Amino acid sequence: MQTSSLDHDAHMRSAITLAHKTPRAPFGSVLVDRQTNKIVASGVNQSSANPILHGEIAAINDYARQGKSDWNKLTLYTTAEPCCMCQGAVLWAGIREVVFGTSIAQLKTLGWKQIDITAEEVVARSWDPSVVVVAGVCAAECDQLFEGAIACRR
Amino acid sequence: MQTSSLDHDAHMRSAITLAHKTPRAPFGSVLVDRQTNKIVASGVNQSSANPILHGEIAAINDYARQGKSDWNKLTLYTTAEPCCMCQGAVLWAGIREVVFGTSIAQLKTLGWKQIDITAEEVVARSWDPSVVVVAGVCAAECDQLFEGAIACRR
Repeated sequence: MQTSSLDHDAHMRSAITLAHKTPRAPFGSVLVDRQTNKIVASGVNQSSANPILHGEIAAINDYARQGKSDWNKLTLYTTAEPCCMCQGAVLWAGIREVVFGTSIAQLKTLGWKQIDITAEEVVARSWDPSVVVVAGVCAAECDQLFEGAIACRR
Repeated sequence: MQTSSLDHDAHMRSAITLAHKTPRAPFGSVLVDRQTNKIVASGVNQSSANPILHGEIAAINDYARQGKSDWNKLTLYTTAEPCCMCQGAVLWAGIREVVFGTSIAQLKTLGWKQIDITAEEVVARSWDPSVVVVAGVCAAECDQLFEGAIACRR
């Protein structure tokens, strides 16, 4: 499957705007309906309340609460590459396209603890290797968020 | 780290009892406090309401809702090997021991769609490879649950 015709930069900027709400953990995610080009759900990192509430999980929970099941028409935008928890969640939900900014490798370089499995690898080892992962959209802006956050934490 | 001195069979039987509540998706999980030997949280598969609510995620959410942060004293018992979403969640939460019944390999053999990454591999590629994974506790009983469920689904 090829990447969709959505404006990846514009939607990633929405995720970045959200991420500014949690500057010490600037993980922001939005789910976009490819048919309408609209944001239908969103989430930011809430791991201080629940350690598994990464931005992606919060966004998926937000959409699930709406009682809909048409996950396959959604694209997930997220400021950082989904970890294997979040990419696993994407697959179980049936979301077929993921677009991220900062890579797991870059987060590690910056000093963030990470599980060293790329989103691409999770997809490749799943029952549906045709799920699309688009890397590095607005990467410079996203990298800057995570550099700033790690400096705050020190 | 060595496996704890908990009675793994007894606690797995509690997870199996829970799993009987959702016979078409018999994924049951309990969190046990190693200091008191008591079950402090539990969860069953609720993926019909939210596709990411595997038993393990439901149990972690159950404990998070209690507002506690002492995850490192907990052991997770679960009828099937945690997928990379659930094992990732275990790591992010700070749970340091996981005990499972049926393996991902066995689920695949039985016809369940799976992400082909073992819980051990997720741990080994994380920032904390000392997290313990104990495989195959009450495996025959657990395998039977999943064989029955897949027969129901056909």
